[in-house]
This record gives sequence, C-alpha cells and structure tokens, in this order.
Amino acid sequence: MKLATLRRDGDTVAIRLDDEGAVEIAGFADVGALLADPDWRAIAEGAAGRFLPVGDIPDDAWAPVVLEPRKIVCVGVNYREHIREMGREEPDFPTLFTKYPESLIGAGDAIVLPPHAAEMVDWEGELAVVIGTRVRRADEATAAAAIAGYTVLNDVSMRDWQNRTLQWLQGKSFENSTPVGPVLATVDEVPASARITTTVDGELMQDGRIDDLVFGPAEIVAYISQIFPLDPGDVVATGTPGGVGHARTPARYLAAGQIVVTSIEGIGSLRNTVVAGA
Amino acid sequence: MKLATLRRDGDTVAIRLDDEGAVEIAGFADVGALLADPDWRAIAEGAAGRFLPVGDIPDDAWAPVVLEPRKIVCVGVNYREHIREMGREEPDFPTLFTKYPESLIGAGDAIVLPPHAAEMVDWEGELAVVIGTRVRRADEATAAAAIAGYTVLNDVSMRDWQNRTLQWLQGKSFENSTPVGPVLATVDEVPASARITTTVDGELMQDGRIDDLVFGPAEIVAYISQIFPLDPGDVVATGTPGGVGHARTPARYLAAGQIVVTSIEGIGSLRNTVVAGA
Repeated sequence: MKLATLRRDGDTVAIRLDDEGAVEIAGFADVGALLADPDWRAIAEGAAGRFLPVGDIPDDAWAPVVLEPRKIVCVGVNYREHIREMGREEPDFPTLFTKYPESLIGAGDAIVLPPHAAEMVDWEGELAVVIGTRVRRADEATAAAAIAGYTVLNDVSMRDWQNRTLQWLQGKSFENSTPVGPVLATVDEVPASARITTTVDGELMQDGRIDDLVFGPAEIVAYISQIFPLDPGDVVATGTPGGVGHARTPARYLAAGQIVVTSIEGIGSLRNTVVAGA
Repeated sequence: MKLATLRRDGDTVAIRLDDEGAVEIAGFADVGALLADPDWRAIAEGAAGRFLPVGDIPDDAWAPVVLEPRKIVCVGVNYREHIREMGREEPDFPTLFTKYPESLIGAGDAIVLPPHAAEMVDWEGELAVVIGTRVRRADEATAAAAIAGYTVLNDVSMRDWQNRTLQWLQGKSFENSTPVGPVLATVDEVPASARITTTVDGELMQDGRIDDLVFGPAEIVAYISQIFPLDPGDVVATGTPGGVGHARTPARYLAAGQIVVTSIEGIGSLRNTVVAGA
C-alpha cells in the first residue's frame, strides 16, 4: 500500500495511491495525522473517498508525506560502498543529526537556493523510514514492527555552511531544501535490495542498493529509541550512498535550472527543479 | 518581569513570579502558550489570577518554562575563557546542534541517569534565550527585539554517547536529562555581565560571566534565523563556560545522589538531584 499527502484547494488531504489513482482518506489532513490513529492501516485500506486519476495529479500537488514530523533524525556515513570510496572505517555506531520540518518540501517542489548559501548545494538521495507506532528503548524486532513504511528523501546539504563548524545542522536544515515523498510505501512494497539512484539533468550521480546500509532501518530505529522515543509520523533518513557532488573531483554542486531526480525501487521518485531564492 | 510554568493538580499553568509569590496568568497552560500571543507582555503584566506565596511553591512544581519548544537549538564552544583553557582558536561561526523536548525537565526535577548511559554524565550550565516573536533572516537589532527573555539550562551531556560519533546529538538528547528554568526573566532583569555558576554538592565547578560569550544572544538568534525561522517559545542555549567535568584532570562525572545547582544572576537557580534510572 502507498499513502501520500496531496495539496488541494489550499488545504491538504491524506490519500491512498492505487495503480489507477488517488483515493481520499476522509478526515485526515496528512499521512502524519493518519499514522497517529492506531487503526491507520485498516482505515487506509478501507478508504473509498473521492477519486483522482493518476494522470490528473499535478506535480505540485505532492506535499511532504508527513507535513510536520515532530522529529526528523538523519543518519550519516552509512553506506558501505561510500565508506570504502572515502577510505574510512566502518563505524561502530550510527552518526545521528537532525533537520527541522521547515526544511521539508514536496516531491515535485522547487529546491530553493538561499541567496546567502547558494554556492555549494549538494544532493544526498536517501531511504527514509516513517514511524507508525511509538517506540522507546525497543529491541530490533519491536523497532521493525514500529516502521509504517518507507519514503524517499533528498538530504540536500549546503556544504559551505555544513563545514563551517564540526556540527552539521546548519548545512542540513535550510528552509525549503529537503524533498520528501512522493509516497509512504509500506514495508512489503520495497524489495530488500531496492535500487536507489540520484540523477542531475539525467546524469546518473548516485546508484546504490539499500541492503548496502551498515545500519539497517530497524537497527537504526532501535538505536535511536535508546536515547529518546520516536512517535508516529517521525521520519528517520538512513544515509546516502556514494556519488555526492562534494566528494567528486572536481566537486559538483547544484545550480538554478537543474533537475534532480531521486528514486527508490518500490517507492517512487522525487523530481525537483533547482531555483534561485529571493 | 519573571514568568514560569507551574504544575498544579495534574495540569500546568503560566504564572508571573513577583517578589511575594506566583500570580496565575489565566488561560495559558505554559509560558510557551503565553508567548504565542502577540500581547503576551501586557497580558502577563496585567494578570491578577490566583496567588500562591513563594514559600508555598514546592520544588517539584516547576515545569520546564516552555513545555514543548518546537525547536531547542544549542550552541557549543562559545565562552572565551573555556576556549582558551582548551587551547582552541576563537571560532568564526557559532557551532549549532539540537535537543528534543523530551529531554527537558523542571528546575527541581531529578536528572535521570539512563542505565545504559550512566557512566559519563556531565554538567553544562548555560544561559538560554527564549524567543518571543517569530524571527527569520533578521539583523541583530531585529533579533534582539525578538528575544522574550532568558532562562537557565543545564545541557547535561552523556559524554560516552556524545563522542561515539562526530555528531553530538546522541549525547545531548537523552530523555529527562535537561533542566530548564526556573523562570523566564525578561531581558531587563539580567545584568549584561551576569555571573553564571554550576556547583555539584556545593563544590564550585563552573564560574563565568555571560559577557564572555564569543557570540552573544542577539548575534546567535540573527545567525540561526539565516538558516531557519525561530518561533515564540523556541529555546536557544548559548553554550557553557569552562569547568565541565569531562575536561578536568581527572575527569569528573555525575553520580546518583549528587545535587547539581546551576545559577545565573538575575534569573535564578536550577537545583537537581541526580538519580539512577530504571
């Protein structure tokens, strides 16, 4: 099952995305509100609200799957191939940092280059976990059961700001910089070794498999839950494979007018145009 | 003027703290809700609700000044004396990281040592800014005007978890670890060179002046606002002076039964007993 949040008439609505189109899940303004209901799965499966054919969904209708996650936790340094190409050792623990909800944009929205941070803007295509059940000090099996599904997140990073200090937050949380979506795909929809790719203007930049993660989704969720709880609608981005612009020789960054596409097999694609900010 | 959030009958209430006692600010469950009202200052000044003499406020009645800040942003490496004693250079930019609201506790609450992270728990007494007006891409004067006031925050840090990876989040956001309060003191209440101290069982561990900050409150708020907006009730902890336990020879950490007191002139004191977690 695939779920999404669509913009409509100045508001938003949770939908189930079937092969034919979007079925409204009445009474829920976004997937976050839906997941807050313990019966979310049955409610979504049984929904029979207003129908919109797939071809009639405009690109700018896709809102962030969860509009306002209470927590967005990101994992760094987590793909084996990427770690090898950087000449690093495999880490003993997940590296964790955060983003704020103001950074989130929809799957077809523009990535805005802030005028004061436009020079070193980089892509990081990632598999993101969406939490379905509150999880606190959980073991891995409990953590796995708490995962509602997966989505695609592009952890767009302002490398100059990220590297101003030792802590990455300031390069990772610019407003309107982080596409997430287009859908939450339940766990059964996503192959264990699903391919994850990022292209810029059609050029393949990142090409990995999600089973190359050092710390897998359930392991990460269990680990985080030892520190603080995660709640329905919280988002955990699991890290990016090799091929980011900053690590290339010469380095490559995003420029206004380019189109970045991040895709994960079984979920779907983010397709974002880069625009200069005001 | 001093404002606080008190627990009462299983609920909470915003109060103004006068010399004689606490005056309820009717209709506001915490200082965060109060600050969300653009007329918060006039409302607080004019409040004449239920009165509670100071001596009748139990230690465990003090809730975190803001119960659920949307953002808690922390600054590291920000006191000149501390930077000198560590042999470091003064930074060009503020180092920013985050905490989550679940870490917050009241001014008299217990600091809980998590059983799986109890060995290297350290104190970091800090001046914290509380935002009163939404601020986005602001200059320093606008940022200064957006500050509702100051509070005291002890950025209790699990050093072992903090240093597991390059990013500090996981040592900084354990549940029920971060006292904040007892009050929000408006800017006029706090001397420009207010003394900030931390004691452990009466032993003076940290002793600084808030004008020793490399980046002052308005400068930090203006800087953060270039990245993402801050909203009323958001908390920005400005960093800790020298004297933390981890930097001592030999290193010192908190143990169950100890009492940690963090005070800032013009605001008040946090007084927290350390207890072993379950």
